[in-house]
Amino acid sequence: MSTLSVPHPLPPVSDDVEQLRKAFSGWGTNENLIISILGHRNEVQRKVIREAYAKTYEEDLIKALNKELTSDFERLVHLWTLESAERDAFLANEATKRWTSSNQVLVELACTRSSDQLFFAKKAYHALHKKSLEEDVAYHTTGDFRKLLLPLVSSYRYEGDEVNLTIAKAEAKILHEKISKKAYNDDDFIRILATRSKAQINATLNHYKDAFGKDINKDLKEDPKNEYLSLLRSTVKCLVFPERYFAKIIREAINKRGTDEGALTRVVATRAEIDLKIIAEEYQRRNSIPLDRAIVKDTTGDYEKMLLAILGHNDA
Amino acid sequence: MSTLSVPHPLPPVSDDVEQLRKAFSGWGTNENLIISILGHRNEVQRKVIREAYAKTYEEDLIKALNKELTSDFERLVHLWTLESAERDAFLANEATKRWTSSNQVLVELACTRSSDQLFFAKKAYHALHKKSLEEDVAYHTTGDFRKLLLPLVSSYRYEGDEVNLTIAKAEAKILHEKISKKAYNDDDFIRILATRSKAQINATLNHYKDAFGKDINKDLKEDPKNEYLSLLRSTVKCLVFPERYFAKIIREAINKRGTDEGALTRVVATRAEIDLKIIAEEYQRRNSIPLDRAIVKDTTGDYEKMLLAILGHNDA
Repeated sequence: MSTLSVPHPLPPVSDDVEQLRKAFSGWGTNENLIISILGHRNEVQRKVIREAYAKTYEEDLIKALNKELTSDFERLVHLWTLESAERDAFLANEATKRWTSSNQVLVELACTRSSDQLFFAKKAYHALHKKSLEEDVAYHTTGDFRKLLLPLVSSYRYEGDEVNLTIAKAEAKILHEKISKKAYNDDDFIRILATRSKAQINATLNHYKDAFGKDINKDLKEDPKNEYLSLLRSTVKCLVFPERYFAKIIREAINKRGTDEGALTRVVATRAEIDLKIIAEEYQRRNSIPLDRAIVKDTTGDYEKMLLAILGHNDA
Repeated sequence: MSTLSVPHPLPPVSDDVEQLRKAFSGWGTNENLIISILGHRNEVQRKVIREAYAKTYEEDLIKALNKELTSDFERLVHLWTLESAERDAFLANEATKRWTSSNQVLVELACTRSSDQLFFAKKAYHALHKKSLEEDVAYHTTGDFRKLLLPLVSSYRYEGDEVNLTIAKAEAKILHEKISKKAYNDDDFIRILATRSKAQINATLNHYKDAFGKDINKDLKEDPKNEYLSLLRSTVKCLVFPERYFAKIIREAINKRGTDEGALTRVVATRAEIDLKIIAEEYQRRNSIPLDRAIVKDTTGDYEKMLLAILGHNDA
């Protein structure tokens, strides 16, 4: 499901490393050269390049890139060059340092990753930040936000397909009762979303719709400005249909006055090798324009070129 | 720090497997033979034996043992023969099915294991029980108990030695304030115990003692019959000085009218290859009798023999 296009045959790593060094040296930076290499290598290949670069030049490739590049292009190349667990740890750490809008990033990391991906992100978090994701999330949030976010980032969910229909019915009823009472921060309400497997939650929410006639997210729309409710809706979306959630994040990023490059970069860099193809289809279905064309309309320069390279264009 | 004594040279696995089979067959079971083999093999060796047994006789060794053995001896051999992650998953699952006293087992699993041991137990839990430890803990507890237990079993704690003294002072103050107000279920109170690294919690509790003149556990003793407070004290003990905690569990198990074999078996089977030597020293310091002698006084038969074998006696 990767959008990436990787050349066959692949040039030797030593060539990639030498070319990158060349792109950094001399008068100005050769951004096109950087894009033509890093924009067309998969995660393992980028990892090998980064290791070889460090060995050859005794400098971290990421640091070298950050020195040479600027703004949105720099951030995209930076995120993209990181390994996925490290990247998630980086994004999570950033999110624990800022306020509400970044809570959505935490929900996204907690609910769209597989259990093992989330675990490896937490491991990388220890190594990079010398503390745990859990303690940072707990420390930087309060009240209902903490009550929801901490178990979401903490749980190691079961990932099997098995579904218990008795539990699905009972818990759909609990969810509905709590929503009727506007008890959105209820312990059981959060427990169900934070600890059940995605398959089980899906069954519960299907039963919710069958029994009570509406999507749960419709019922969680009482007050569109309530940030906690909006976070609950994101939780549900990320758990049940992540590709559609991401397509919507991209849509909002592009439709915003002035584009939200932060969100666009995050989704492209984190999903390219996972489900960006499906996200792009979902995007086109909802917006009647292919994702790459929407990106061309809304972005410019090296940033645009790098996005398109990661999306699989070959002429970057 | 293992108490175990393993023969040199080690007999070939095929011999062990054959001997075990022999112990099961014929008239009655040869318990001594079982003890002489399984009581003197380490975790990796037992794993290899179990695999070879399954391959040779197309039967799970654990099932064969459960068929042949009974009561306390059966449970000890069963727990001992499991791999540690599987054993923790088994104990945790059992604990989620029973009430309060088993909450202590959950605290013990969550707070005395390393972060990776706890993670592997959760992985084994998925494989064995087709659901997550988190959802079972959340489902089987309510109120304050859930509020404490769920983050304890969920967190993947940082394990470095780094300590932030500013945080230690600030959080010691928070703990003391909450205790003064008897707000034992306060969000921040639980957050600190559930998410900080063990080194950090240790620094915080040392500062607590320096600043407020008493061990936190003394301040958590307000009502000795309050089960939630008792669980908080166990949490502190397991995090800060697990060997002493385990020595006390054994002491209580032995001093009880009729011995609490469940607890004794659990501690011996789970700690033998980790810190049972230190636990035994701690036990002797507090009780003025060596642990093995206390066990001889309090147990009998094959159960006694197997306990002593795991404790390193060679004449079982």
